[in-house]
Amino acid sequence: MPVDPKADIEITAFGWVPDMAKGLVKDLRVRWALEEAGLPYRVRLLHAMQKPADYVQQQPFNQVPCLRQGDLTIFESGAILQYIGEQSETLLPRDPRGRFAAIQWTYAALNSLEPFIQHRVLLDSIYAGEEWARLAKPRADELARLRLNQLSQRLGDRDWLEGDRFTIGDLLTVTVLRIADRGKLLEPGSNLAAYLSRGQARPAFQSALADHLADFTLTEGVAA
Amino acid sequence: MPVDPKADIEITAFGWVPDMAKGLVKDLRVRWALEEAGLPYRVRLLHAMQKPADYVQQQPFNQVPCLRQGDLTIFESGAILQYIGEQSETLLPRDPRGRFAAIQWTYAALNSLEPFIQHRVLLDSIYAGEEWARLAKPRADELARLRLNQLSQRLGDRDWLEGDRFTIGDLLTVTVLRIADRGKLLEPGSNLAAYLSRGQARPAFQSALADHLADFTLTEGVAA
Repeated sequence: MPVDPKADIEITAFGWVPDMAKGLVKDLRVRWALEEAGLPYRVRLLHAMQKPADYVQQQPFNQVPCLRQGDLTIFESGAILQYIGEQSETLLPRDPRGRFAAIQWTYAALNSLEPFIQHRVLLDSIYAGEEWARLAKPRADELARLRLNQLSQRLGDRDWLEGDRFTIGDLLTVTVLRIADRGKLLEPGSNLAAYLSRGQARPAFQSALADHLADFTLTEGVAA
Repeated sequence: MPVDPKADIEITAFGWVPDMAKGLVKDLRVRWALEEAGLPYRVRLLHAMQKPADYVQQQPFNQVPCLRQGDLTIFESGAILQYIGEQSETLLPRDPRGRFAAIQWTYAALNSLEPFIQHRVLLDSIYAGEEWARLAKPRADELARLRLNQLSQRLGDRDWLEGDRFTIGDLLTVTVLRIADRGKLLEPGSNLAAYLSRGQARPAFQSALADHLADFTLTEGVAA
């Protein structure tokens, strides 16, 4: 099992978040990649509402995850996944064509998909009950569904975005589709729903999710 | 001058967009990087409202830019910038620490900053006049300003995000701040305003912007 208190690689994760965020916090993405790569890691748990004052020096936006290994510190899951990918041929091909194909999908997941999907889903979760959220929904819905349809068209009947091989691009895209699924934006029986299931069925994902969920050990406490 | 119809590198750009989008379309980011790297490129102009039906096979979200060189095709500006950065020591350091520091800022610009800033700015531009946009503004404003403040704190009195050296991370961050500036979200005299000015004063940026603006040569025509 990659979680090992003596591991060289440290990641940060939240030890408490509201229930609706469990299973979606971004440390899951990095845990999954580390499981796929078979790299042991230790976890530094932070309270989402009471972060240490100096954490912002490590992660300028006060978010998780952040990776540390020796004197190297990397924030932003996309960059961390590239770092892990370079240590594992299974996640990031070595040839330039395969490599950039995988890398472009990490940016697509984080810039062309996630913002639209996340925004739409938040209108029904943390902003549910707000009048502005109700009124903003039709346009947000249209944009999120447009991007999901474009992804579906591109995926077609492939197993993974670039064919047979699962890469860091798929890993991030699947975690973004988990948000869409939470917001009931995926059509049952669609190729995207099947792609999400395929991703979530991977043993590395299962282990990562179990460890992610098991680490919510802190109590709610007082918000900062 | 990097623009050369015989160049090996081809990028796509829009030859017509609404006035409010001029100077902000993402081909500018890639043109700027190519200018910094001194790499010649040719441009394939597309009409934003009438894209060729097969363009989606090259760019799944029907956006620009897309880069082609020989049999390599890359979409997503972040990935394209890494590709250009690897051909130019000036934009992407070679040592792992400097390299991942630059890469992490490309993801920060595109995932932790741009979505919040862009969403806020669109409420006052393409969605101005919509009741939902007016009501959504306070929360959108709060989120955009939080992220800008966090960036400002991290930048401090540095010239560039990681110190003395301008990287692809700065390049993307500066172009995201151009959106914030268009929406009047930057305080005059602030370190972010000075950082934006420093970026825009670079000769490579000036050339790229001039070429970007000069390429709006198509007429509005009929929307698809």
